[in-house]
Amino acid sequence: MSEMNIVIVGLGLIGGSLAKAFTKYTNCHVAGFDSSPATLEAALACGAVTKAGDEDDLAQADIVYLCLYPQADIDFVRAHLSSFTANTVVTDVCGIKAEVCRGLCRLAEKGGFIYCGAHPMAGTEKHGFSASNADMFKGASYILVPCGAPEKVCELLRQTAYRLGFGRSVSTTPERHDQLIAFTSQLPHALACAYVMSPRCPEHRGFSAGSYRDVSRVANINEVMWSELFLDNRTALTEEMDTLLKNLTDIRNAVADNDQPRLEALLRKGRLIKEALGE
Amino acid sequence: MSEMNIVIVGLGLIGGSLAKAFTKYTNCHVAGFDSSPATLEAALACGAVTKAGDEDDLAQADIVYLCLYPQADIDFVRAHLSSFTANTVVTDVCGIKAEVCRGLCRLAEKGGFIYCGAHPMAGTEKHGFSASNADMFKGASYILVPCGAPEKVCELLRQTAYRLGFGRSVSTTPERHDQLIAFTSQLPHALACAYVMSPRCPEHRGFSAGSYRDVSRVANINEVMWSELFLDNRTALTEEMDTLLKNLTDIRNAVADNDQPRLEALLRKGRLIKEALGE
Repeated sequence: MSEMNIVIVGLGLIGGSLAKAFTKYTNCHVAGFDSSPATLEAALACGAVTKAGDEDDLAQADIVYLCLYPQADIDFVRAHLSSFTANTVVTDVCGIKAEVCRGLCRLAEKGGFIYCGAHPMAGTEKHGFSASNADMFKGASYILVPCGAPEKVCELLRQTAYRLGFGRSVSTTPERHDQLIAFTSQLPHALACAYVMSPRCPEHRGFSAGSYRDVSRVANINEVMWSELFLDNRTALTEEMDTLLKNLTDIRNAVADNDQPRLEALLRKGRLIKEALGE
Repeated sequence: MSEMNIVIVGLGLIGGSLAKAFTKYTNCHVAGFDSSPATLEAALACGAVTKAGDEDDLAQADIVYLCLYPQADIDFVRAHLSSFTANTVVTDVCGIKAEVCRGLCRLAEKGGFIYCGAHPMAGTEKHGFSASNADMFKGASYILVPCGAPEKVCELLRQTAYRLGFGRSVSTTPERHDQLIAFTSQLPHALACAYVMSPRCPEHRGFSAGSYRDVSRVANINEVMWSELFLDNRTALTEEMDTLLKNLTDIRNAVADNDQPRLEALLRKGRLIKEALGE
């Protein structure tokens, strides 16, 4: 396993962190693709990648990690389809899965390579290679979305993830992944943006603490990437937003009506859910 | 200053932490009141307070910190009104100020003591004396709401706060405090409760990371205290909730309409606000 050939396509926050983690924690050969020459140079300079990737690297890769935006991942594979072999395991790191898995499964069939979707549950509110780090995945969850990939391939990706620092792995379907991610990740990002739009926000200094910091943290969003992720998952996300809007409106109405028993009951409901999770 | 007599009324999360900070960082004499004999015993046993408070302690106090719920603070002062002197500085730690300041200013006039409102911007999602700690206030903001108290008194409270670890202090009116707190603190608490009410919440394990953790953190709410705080500030809080509901609905509609330019513009707006704050 220590001698695998790894290709990382896209050296942004996640791709860059994967490259650095492979370099720090394994002896794998890591070739990197990036459309920005400056990023590629930075990755070579700090040793995150062994070399700039080319068609030969793709042909000899044990695992190719696609770390671009959803549509760009599909476009990259289509453009390099003839380089993949029957032994190439292709995976991705996209935050939504149904659309991406559909596109890449189709290409895997056409190109004769093995595809297994994945989503590393890690990240920060910062962007790009400069924010990447080898320890990004410490203890994080590695979600596998096999889409029919052989168990042997899933196991290879899982074991590789553990070598990079991931703490757990779960497997699911693209559809269930997208429903859960709408709640756990997309909704908080939408919320953070909506929250900081309050006219009070610019005055918060001195009047805020952990609650403000936590809710607003991810407002520093990459709007181009997240718009694509939101819209690729719009049914599930709209449903989650409607659920939240309804529940928040219930609390709002109890406050506006000065109805203490109703307000207490609503807040208690939230507390009991959180407590039942042991959090 | 090192020999001040301090009285802390209510040894919950904030009162307990104040007691522990006074004991750790000053030589002040700290007397504590608590309606629970077990809590008082715990505070005595760990040395957080020097003794259980009585009328004499109130009469000799340099500063009395009221650390109960808003109405209970007022009730306590009313019940002990004859013990306060013209030299007693009374302050509180309530999360809302207009109602509390009105009640305590009236009692200060009647009882002839000095009142200066305050709100230490610190806390955790845990409750009670067992969750209190001496370093709760490290770097936090100490909001002063003087309500006409002499600058000398404000300066005493401010300098004392710095000795306990606070990192900054701001002064404002009760009304402005409550408007800002509706946004920075109350709204995130309401949001956390509304958020965890999603039917997806119990399934989040393995599919969540920092975003879920941050938004849901304070759902573990003390619903009795927070209901009182919400309702005492219901005009400002309702306004903030309406602002958030509107902004979140705008994002929701852009998603549901599959309108990428509109969605990008909304998310960009959030990002630019956050960036302009240097966060």
